[in-house]
Amino acid sequence: MSTNNDFEFKLLARDKNTNARLGQLITSHGKLDTPVFMPVGTKATVKAMTPEDLAQLGAGIILSNAYHLYLRPGHELIRDLGGLHKFMNWPGAILTDSGGYQLFSLSDFCKITEEGVTFQSHIDGGTKHLITPEVAIQIQQALGADIIMPLDECLSYPAEYERALTSMQLTIRWAQRCRDAHNQGGSALFGIVQGGIYKDLREQCALKLVKLDFAGYAVGGLSVGEPKPQMYDIIAHTLDFLPQQKPRYAMGLGSPEDLFECVSRGVDMFDCVMPTRHARNGVLFTSSGSLIIKHAKHTDDAKPIDAECGCYTCRHYSRAYLRHLYVSGEILAARLHTIHNLYFYLDLMRQIRHYIARSTFLELWNNFKSQYKHRR
Amino acid sequence: MSTNNDFEFKLLARDKNTNARLGQLITSHGKLDTPVFMPVGTKATVKAMTPEDLAQLGAGIILSNAYHLYLRPGHELIRDLGGLHKFMNWPGAILTDSGGYQLFSLSDFCKITEEGVTFQSHIDGGTKHLITPEVAIQIQQALGADIIMPLDECLSYPAEYERALTSMQLTIRWAQRCRDAHNQGGSALFGIVQGGIYKDLREQCALKLVKLDFAGYAVGGLSVGEPKPQMYDIIAHTLDFLPQQKPRYAMGLGSPEDLFECVSRGVDMFDCVMPTRHARNGVLFTSSGSLIIKHAKHTDDAKPIDAECGCYTCRHYSRAYLRHLYVSGEILAARLHTIHNLYFYLDLMRQIRHYIARSTFLELWNNFKSQYKHRR
Repeated sequence: MSTNNDFEFKLLARDKNTNARLGQLITSHGKLDTPVFMPVGTKATVKAMTPEDLAQLGAGIILSNAYHLYLRPGHELIRDLGGLHKFMNWPGAILTDSGGYQLFSLSDFCKITEEGVTFQSHIDGGTKHLITPEVAIQIQQALGADIIMPLDECLSYPAEYERALTSMQLTIRWAQRCRDAHNQGGSALFGIVQGGIYKDLREQCALKLVKLDFAGYAVGGLSVGEPKPQMYDIIAHTLDFLPQQKPRYAMGLGSPEDLFECVSRGVDMFDCVMPTRHARNGVLFTSSGSLIIKHAKHTDDAKPIDAECGCYTCRHYSRAYLRHLYVSGEILAARLHTIHNLYFYLDLMRQIRHYIARSTFLELWNNFKSQYKHRR
Repeated sequence: MSTNNDFEFKLLARDKNTNARLGQLITSHGKLDTPVFMPVGTKATVKAMTPEDLAQLGAGIILSNAYHLYLRPGHELIRDLGGLHKFMNWPGAILTDSGGYQLFSLSDFCKITEEGVTFQSHIDGGTKHLITPEVAIQIQQALGADIIMPLDECLSYPAEYERALTSMQLTIRWAQRCRDAHNQGGSALFGIVQGGIYKDLREQCALKLVKLDFAGYAVGGLSVGEPKPQMYDIIAHTLDFLPQQKPRYAMGLGSPEDLFECVSRGVDMFDCVMPTRHARNGVLFTSSGSLIIKHAKHTDDAKPIDAECGCYTCRHYSRAYLRHLYVSGEILAARLHTIHNLYFYLDLMRQIRHYIARSTFLELWNNFKSQYKHRR
């Protein structure tokens, strides 16, 4: 069973000039206007932010990671303490990633069989673990996430056609097993479309997953090294085979440009470490491009990061102060920068929704393109 | 000239059974009830806290450090950007330490002459600097602090009587020069009593400084290795020679026990890195003693740090979650722990004032002693 009475997606409007969509995700932890950006809270915390900070920034849903929480502190411990929402004091919605991507990128040893993935922990280096599709669902159900993801195999790039085909077929068999294992009403299970850069494999995968009837569909295995135009093309092609009435999620994307490109093709949901990780590295988003706070030119600059920005950081602090905090290694730098970058992303999504509702999304996108430059 | 029209100290009440005092410090950035604890914001930030956090915790005055800010980002830069209050967005009062203590403990090379202190920066390791008493005042006036401190020589412990005498005499000559250099109405200049562990030197120093008529008096050179009973004894002895109508400040103290001991002897002002530094190291203060959050016994503990505590952290987070954040190296741990420890200190001071006002300070102190144990 893959039904969740609390979960619903409403398609509210469509842009006249693009495939951009306006919708609403209804979860047992709140309603979310889409397209939506989900800040990443890998280890049960969006780094440097309290839940109140996130709510104030307008975040309604965050992403957390089953792989990390399974290893530490353990999903059963979190379940016994009342679930992930209570554990981290977050009243909003949570989507957990199954850990497929992390298994392949973080673990010290990783072997795939039909049964599942055997790996060694990247934390203690020694302990061996087997994650099967069933275990991946059990972990996420124990965490109590609102949206959960099946175990999938994440191909590295480039991958031969045969390898991509075999992998995609395994991902489908695992998706079926995840669907069968999913037995908790409070969570909605999504499907993940794989298939590498091969359009026919993406199409096959999408069609087979749709037959299994998931609550939503993700496009996985992207932004792993393929050229951007090809990535956008694969997303557009994949979405063609997914039902309009279900939410579509582009996993791990992306840059501000990616958000526009993907929204224009019909993506409803995003997550990415970019705003939070860049913040901690002193790379700040502005309406005219990114800004490197440690640059000497900001040393005595009394201006805020972005004069057009309404975030707490821009209303109260100069670039000079932020640069001082950053070069001094002060924790407050990470915090003030994260507030700014998340505000930038979440405000961008608010604008995107506003313009889609008026079918003027292209106008916003063109304005963005004319202003936004990479300054790195 | 050492007058400041905005600065005033009112002695409001005295405990009947001890020398504890209740007072009010009036600065151009707010009124402060004493005894008062000043959180330490060395580099123009109380680590991990926003000014709003501090205000919410009840802090009305913080300490910042002229030595650090002189080296980075530079006091002239801060002055040109509107002063330290504006730079760090802190509307409350600020006391700056002159840097005497830091010169001796942090700089790579340090030579004292009658003129001042020559040292090499601990940041770039190479550049040489000379801080004279006059420069120390200029730096602090450029920062725009409400209370500023003279340059003094901080003896290491133990020190021979002759060495302590010579040093104390130099500190007095520097204090006179600082007083002469002080020419900004917005700041109040305190004197610092030195003299090591020698009571007659403390007495001489206090009497000479009092003749110079400072806005308040600090006891410096303490907690450098001498036994605690001796430290308390020297404080009590020094205060005997300071005017009742001026505020008394015990520099760099202390532990919760130190606060009680010193308040009972008539100290009005405190600063210490202990609550904030311990917080970042996962050592948390509770009504029954300190708690080490990384201990395995907290792994699945649903209780807050302290069930009797009303702070944000204790109202929303379990020991299990805080331990998870701490062992995972998450920034939020530093932030939630700092909120808790500063709340503990500031709430303790609120209680101390409440009980002094009723002449029942000893009752509070006895309760504290019976409950509080070192668990480290």
